[in-house]
Amino acid sequence: MDLYSDEYFMREALKEAAKAFAIDEVPVGAVVVCKNRIIARAHNQTEKLTDATAHAEMLAVTSAANYLGSKYLSECTLYVTLEPCVMCAGALHWVQLQKLVFGASDVQRGYSLVSSPLLHPKTEVVRGIQADESKKLIEDFFRRIRN
Amino acid sequence: MDLYSDEYFMREALKEAAKAFAIDEVPVGAVVVCKNRIIARAHNQTEKLTDATAHAEMLAVTSAANYLGSKYLSECTLYVTLEPCVMCAGALHWVQLQKLVFGASDVQRGYSLVSSPLLHPKTEVVRGIQADESKKLIEDFFRRIRN
Repeated sequence: MDLYSDEYFMREALKEAAKAFAIDEVPVGAVVVCKNRIIARAHNQTEKLTDATAHAEMLAVTSAANYLGSKYLSECTLYVTLEPCVMCAGALHWVQLQKLVFGASDVQRGYSLVSSPLLHPKTEVVRGIQADESKKLIEDFFRRIRN
Repeated sequence: MDLYSDEYFMREALKEAAKAFAIDEVPVGAVVVCKNRIIARAHNQTEKLTDATAHAEMLAVTSAANYLGSKYLSECTLYVTLEPCVMCAGALHWVQLQKLVFGASDVQRGYSLVSSPLLHPKTEVVRGIQADESKKLIEDFFRRIRN
């Protein structure tokens, strides 16, 4: 696996998703990369923070903006293991994200189910990177909580 | 003005918007009401927090959930002076908001510009409450920063 490839950074996002899994959160993880450097890492914490808006993407984006001291992430890539929801896509629009890379598609809540374009027109999108691992983690999670 | 009317609580949201105006933030304010009691107040703080996601609605919703100790605001009303954007509408979906009351429509970024329904199907919507005051505050703000 090449260093600085989409696969490399998605592997880091998957590590974050595994952290969520370990604390009984829906396992979604994200990292924000700027000039080949990870400047923010986050995983879903909706249960821990009792906050339905505490998705991995929201936390990662806020953290990255804080790190950069800028409201805009127009030179950053967000890697996230699951397709963002409408809320997160709206947030990615506001920060003018340069590039979005996601793993598995979210056939129930993914932003691409909405017919209007929700992301910023300048945001490049790559989908399906390590989608199988991401999907398996989420399936394992829901199998576990159902048992 | 009746106590516990939509106008009464929107007046409180407008007070929050005025606080934003006073610190050079786009003047949008919000309050969350549960059983006729205000449980959260917030105003836009995107500049102060260097966070494009720090909209009044996001801050108010997170604060209300924290106060209630619940991820869901299914017995709450959000009053916000301006129509929520796509991100905020997505957040209101996740918290299963009971009722949304907003002032002015946002003809550029309002969630209702998206053809798909973004709010939770159970969320009742009332629009146009004290819309003129809300709109005037925002117009005054943009007139000021342009001069």
